[in-house]
Amino acid sequence: QYEHGADATDKAGYRHFMLKEIHEQPKVLAATLEGRVTQDGVLPEILGPGTLDLLKRIESIQIVACGTSYHAGLVARYWIESLSGLPCQVEIASEFRYRDVAPVKNSLFLSISQSGETADTLAALRNLGPDYLGKLAVCNVPGSSLTRESDLVLMTQAGPEIGVASTKAFTTQLIALSWLALTLKRIHRPDAAAEAELVAGLRALPKQVDDLISGYSGQIEKMAEAFADRQHALFLGRGANYPVAMEGALKLKEISYIHAEAYAAGELKHGPLALVDEEMPVVVVAPNDDMVEKLLSNLEEVKARGGRLYVFADESVALPSDPAIMSIQLPAVPAQWSAIYYTVPLQLLSYYVALLKGTDVDQPRNLAKSVTVE
Amino acid sequence: QYEHGADATDKAGYRHFMLKEIHEQPKVLAATLEGRVTQDGVLPEILGPGTLDLLKRIESIQIVACGTSYHAGLVARYWIESLSGLPCQVEIASEFRYRDVAPVKNSLFLSISQSGETADTLAALRNLGPDYLGKLAVCNVPGSSLTRESDLVLMTQAGPEIGVASTKAFTTQLIALSWLALTLKRIHRPDAAAEAELVAGLRALPKQVDDLISGYSGQIEKMAEAFADRQHALFLGRGANYPVAMEGALKLKEISYIHAEAYAAGELKHGPLALVDEEMPVVVVAPNDDMVEKLLSNLEEVKARGGRLYVFADESVALPSDPAIMSIQLPAVPAQWSAIYYTVPLQLLSYYVALLKGTDVDQPRNLAKSVTVE
Repeated sequence: QYEHGADATDKAGYRHFMLKEIHEQPKVLAATLEGRVTQDGVLPEILGPGTLDLLKRIESIQIVACGTSYHAGLVARYWIESLSGLPCQVEIASEFRYRDVAPVKNSLFLSISQSGETADTLAALRNLGPDYLGKLAVCNVPGSSLTRESDLVLMTQAGPEIGVASTKAFTTQLIALSWLALTLKRIHRPDAAAEAELVAGLRALPKQVDDLISGYSGQIEKMAEAFADRQHALFLGRGANYPVAMEGALKLKEISYIHAEAYAAGELKHGPLALVDEEMPVVVVAPNDDMVEKLLSNLEEVKARGGRLYVFADESVALPSDPAIMSIQLPAVPAQWSAIYYTVPLQLLSYYVALLKGTDVDQPRNLAKSVTVE
Repeated sequence: QYEHGADATDKAGYRHFMLKEIHEQPKVLAATLEGRVTQDGVLPEILGPGTLDLLKRIESIQIVACGTSYHAGLVARYWIESLSGLPCQVEIASEFRYRDVAPVKNSLFLSISQSGETADTLAALRNLGPDYLGKLAVCNVPGSSLTRESDLVLMTQAGPEIGVASTKAFTTQLIALSWLALTLKRIHRPDAAAEAELVAGLRALPKQVDDLISGYSGQIEKMAEAFADRQHALFLGRGANYPVAMEGALKLKEISYIHAEAYAAGELKHGPLALVDEEMPVVVVAPNDDMVEKLLSNLEEVKARGGRLYVFADESVALPSDPAIMSIQLPAVPAQWSAIYYTVPLQLLSYYVALLKGTDVDQPRNLAKSVTVE
């Protein structure tokens, strides 16, 4: 298990490291952007000489990671494919390393790990075949094995993360991956005006996350009461917010021991709808109207079974007034980066549920901070 | 909703259609192989003239499906990549259709749907960009929209499936996909001796499944008692048996309303281990020693929380004698096709759990047989 320096073990007045780390996000998101974007766009050269040439030659990206980092990879896939037009695959490291993988030609291998010591991710890197053009790591710990053994390293600036349930490491991974997606766009599908607008959206995020935490924590704490006596929850999302739903469900699992499971919203009718009843709250990540419209068609079925929806939506979304829907509507953020923003209320939700349940928030049972063994 | 002919609505003495359909598998697996393999190998020409040429030109496969059919696609991915060396991506149709997909060059588009009327799968097919070399459908209903709108059709011979929880449709999809994986191997990585051995394994499966159903249903019914009072379950698998675990969890969800969730076994320590306690039985699909060895390292942690393991393993696997492990050890089957074989005991487990719970096995609440709306 990776040990952080003792200098980081100060809760700075917060009740738990997890809450402190959630609150640090505006600062560390900005720090991870720092020096990588300007007012006009990304700085594509930051990974050093030869990198641009490599990123020009690649035709595909293979992401490999575990746990929360895997969810970051899943978000990045949506961004990379839509922005750069390069196909992107994402796989759990423990699966990738043991199977007979057929790589797409001219792929970049991209590993993601907060600690840089995750056993399965390292093993995937170490046993990689010769078919990859390069090895890039997204990592939070300088000098870790993953950074030493990769060709290129994109560091997150989250600082030491003490809480076992990852928060700021995840969102800074997303920031690093947004840089990668934009850089690949610059190279493979350039559009200076679009890039400038996307970068402006990124640069505005730290302040928006700050406002969200200070402005909505109370409402989220109130919503948490509905979960404290529950043993189950379903998290639904679509597009890049589907992995955000996965990460939200994982947080609730890890620290509140509620059996939360995420589904792509469109899969609801293919099975999990059978589970919905008054014991199974349904959390919905719905930054835009598209998602909500489709969900409303499911709402009647959820309601008919006594189910209740807990919706995080953009303030512009017209939600019906219905006792079966509890919603928190949030200020508008750029659609491209909503996955970063909507991660934060789900972190807060799981934190407040765990508080109500009285679990050991920073050190949940059975789990280690870094999984350095299989 | 697709309506089957009245001639199929006979339970033939079985208590439920689902049980009848589980028992029909030896017959329909053989029927789906019929005319597609010989003693020596696959017959690659069965899809008609020009098909071989198309399958020669493709460099990648993109699979799109929903629910159980999506799980069949995930299994096929392991087979196709390891046997043919062609990269294969699999995606949920409701995600694929709405996002900006970056296709791998020279891909075959492969859709899978029992009914051929699944709304999201059809929409994905209909909105497909021009970048695919061909459109192949795996389907069970002749004349369905999916078969009419695809270039090539690979029919399963499951016959009408009445139980909402798919059983024989899934395993016959796997048989059809095994033909595809072997045909792609013949074309892209030919090895006559290996192919003959793999085909011999496939041809032996119907009898082995028959023996499994007749020989082990009693033990599985007994094991089901441990689940009847549970609200949760975790299903673990690795490799091609990871999607088998997903399908096993989905069955339990659909007909017994137990919140069962599947994980790739290697992900256990990245979160879900926090959930394990005496209320959360852990089902393990472990056809071979590799998997079991790794799991034994987790066993102590599962046991320390009062967790119990329910293991389906090959009879050659040396399981420790431990009150925390209940196992059913099954006759040896070829490793390549274990996903087909190990699906069956999980179908039986969910059926017997649902019987004990007294749910409406063939028509579970909230679900329709074919999801023809979003």
